[in-house]
Amino acid sequence: MRGLAGIEVARETGRRNGLEPLTALVQDELQAVNRLILERMNSPVSLIPQLAGHIIAAGGKRLRPILTLASARLCGYQGRRHLHLAACVEFIHTATLLHDDVVDQSNLRRGLSTANALWGNQPSVLVGDFLFSRAFQLMVADGSLKVLKILSDASAVIAEGEVQQLLTTNDTATGVQDYLDVVGAKTAALFSAACQIGAVVAERPETEEAALEAFGRNFGIAFQIIDDLLDYSASQVELGKTIGDDFREGKITLPVILAFARADDGERVFWRRCLEDMDQTDGDFGQALALMSRHKVFDDTLAYAQAYAADAREALGLFPQSPVRSEMLDLVDFCIERAY
Amino acid sequence: MRGLAGIEVARETGRRNGLEPLTALVQDELQAVNRLILERMNSPVSLIPQLAGHIIAAGGKRLRPILTLASARLCGYQGRRHLHLAACVEFIHTATLLHDDVVDQSNLRRGLSTANALWGNQPSVLVGDFLFSRAFQLMVADGSLKVLKILSDASAVIAEGEVQQLLTTNDTATGVQDYLDVVGAKTAALFSAACQIGAVVAERPETEEAALEAFGRNFGIAFQIIDDLLDYSASQVELGKTIGDDFREGKITLPVILAFARADDGERVFWRRCLEDMDQTDGDFGQALALMSRHKVFDDTLAYAQAYAADAREALGLFPQSPVRSEMLDLVDFCIERAY
Repeated sequence: MRGLAGIEVARETGRRNGLEPLTALVQDELQAVNRLILERMNSPVSLIPQLAGHIIAAGGKRLRPILTLASARLCGYQGRRHLHLAACVEFIHTATLLHDDVVDQSNLRRGLSTANALWGNQPSVLVGDFLFSRAFQLMVADGSLKVLKILSDASAVIAEGEVQQLLTTNDTATGVQDYLDVVGAKTAALFSAACQIGAVVAERPETEEAALEAFGRNFGIAFQIIDDLLDYSASQVELGKTIGDDFREGKITLPVILAFARADDGERVFWRRCLEDMDQTDGDFGQALALMSRHKVFDDTLAYAQAYAADAREALGLFPQSPVRSEMLDLVDFCIERAY
Repeated sequence: MRGLAGIEVARETGRRNGLEPLTALVQDELQAVNRLILERMNSPVSLIPQLAGHIIAAGGKRLRPILTLASARLCGYQGRRHLHLAACVEFIHTATLLHDDVVDQSNLRRGLSTANALWGNQPSVLVGDFLFSRAFQLMVADGSLKVLKILSDASAVIAEGEVQQLLTTNDTATGVQDYLDVVGAKTAALFSAACQIGAVVAERPETEEAALEAFGRNFGIAFQIIDDLLDYSASQVELGKTIGDDFREGKITLPVILAFARADDGERVFWRRCLEDMDQTDGDFGQALALMSRHKVFDDTLAYAQAYAADAREALGLFPQSPVRSEMLDLVDFCIERAY
C-alpha cells in the first residue's frame, strides 16, 4: 500500500492532474463516443433528449467510457466496436444516476440541478428506463453475447447493490463488509465490466480479461470509498455536490462505520439520533466531523481506499509498459489524491 | 368489424369465460414459467424477492407470457426456449408496472396495495431495475440475438410511450392519433414482441413472424382501449383497481378525447378545469360519466377497440385451424366483451 508520504510527493511534483492525461490520450475516440451518445439518446419524444442531454452533457467526466477506451487500447484493439460499447456503458451509468437522484431525492449533481429537481421524478424514472433500453439496443447491435452477458450481469448486480444500500440506510449496525459489498455492487460492477469489455473486443486471452476486470473492480471500490470520504471533507466547489448529503440522508458509509465502531456510549447515542432517528439539528454535521477527526477516521478510510488502489495498480502489472498503462496507473493515484 | 349484436350473442351463449381456456391449454408450460419466475427473481438481497414476489405472485393474469406460449404452440414449437422467454416477458412487464405505479403514485393494483404503497418509491424503482436486468440476463442465456433485438427494441419503445403519455397528461389538446401512438408504444409493443418471439424460437418463416407481430400489436391496442374504457365504467370489484383513476390523475384517454371533441364551450370549460387545472370536486366524475354517456362516447370507444380486435383476429387467418388458434381468437373476443 502506498503511504501518505508518497502521495505528498506526488502532489508536490505536480502530478495531481486528474482525468485529463488519460482523456487526452483517447480524445479522438472519446469524441466519437460523445457523437454516438448524442445520436443514440435521440427520440421523437422530445423530452427524452432534453432530459437525457441535461444529465449526459452537463459536466460528466465520462470516466467509465474512458475506462473502456483505455482498456481496449491497452489490449491493442484496432477496431471501432469499443466506441459503441463505451457509449452503452455511459448510458447504463446515466440511467442509474437518474434513478439514484430520484431515490435519494437529490437536488444537485455536479453543481447543477438534478433532472428530478427540474422535471420531476416521473420523467426521470422513465427516461432512465429508456436509456437503459438504449444501452441494450447498442449491445445487441454489437452482437457479442459475451459482452451482453458481462453488461447484463453488471446491471443486475448494480440494482442489487442499490437495494442493499437502501437497506443499510439508517442502520448503524452496518459493518465494513456490508459496506464493501454495497460498493462492490453499486459502483465497482460497472467499472469492472467497462474495463473487461475492452479485452473482450480485442479478443485477448482470459488472463488479460481477468486482469482488466480486477483493475476495474478494485479501482471502482477505491473510487467510491474516496467519494464517500469527500462527502465529509470536500468543499462544494471541489466536489460539485453538496457536502454532508450522506449524513443528512442517513447513509451509512465507511467514515460513519469506523466512527461508530470507535464511539463511546454517548457518541453512539449521537450517531443513532442523527442517522437512525434522523433527528438532526444545525450543529450535528460539525459534531460528526469532530468525532471522525478525533477517532482518526479520515486516515483509516483513506487507508482502505489505498489498499484497493494498490490492488488495481497491481492488476495492470500483467501488461507491458505503455503510455496508456501509465495514465491508467496515474488515474488510480489521482483518485486517491483528490481526497486531500 | 364485429358488431355489438354479435357480442351480445357471444355473451348469451356463455362464451364470456376470459383467459381461462387459453391458460388451461398451456397450463403445464405456464407452471414451468411460474417456477422459472420464482427462481430467477431470487436474490441474496431479501427485499428483492419480497417486493417482486408481491407484484408477480399477487393476482397477475400472466397474459403476456401466455401469449408467448400460445404463439410458440401455434407455430408448432416443441422445445423449451419459449419458457425462459415467457418469464423474461413477464419480468419486463413487472418492471414497467413497478415504475408505472411510482410514476402514477398509485395505491392499488388488482385490488391489492401497490409495492410503492407498501415499501415506498425507492425500492420500487430499484427492484424494477433489477427485474429489467434479470429479463436481459434470461435473454442472453437464451442466446438468440434476434430475440434480444425484438425485446430490447420493445423495451425502448415502451419507455418512449410512457414518457409520451406523461406529456399528454393534463393536455386536452391530445388527439386520437396521439393517444393511439402512446397505446401502441406503452402497451402494444410488448404484446407484439411476446407473440413474435413465439414464431422466432420455432424458426418459422417471416410471414408467420409478421402475422404474430400484427396479432399482438392489434390485440394490445384493443386491450388497452378497453382497459381505459373500464376506468370510466367497471366496478372496482370487477376491475381490481379504483375506478376513475385516470380522471383523477388527469390522464387523457380515448373516452376523454372523444367527449372533449364533441363538447360545447361550457363542457370544454368543465373538462379543462378537471383535467388541465386538476381542480376537481366530488360530483365531477359523475358529471364526466354523464357527458360521456350523452355524447355516446362509450359505444364509439368500443368501436375503436373492435376495429383493432378485428385486425388481430384477421392476422391469425394465416394459421390453420387448431385448438390454440381458437382460444387465441376467443381471447380477443373476451377482451372486448369484458367492457360490458
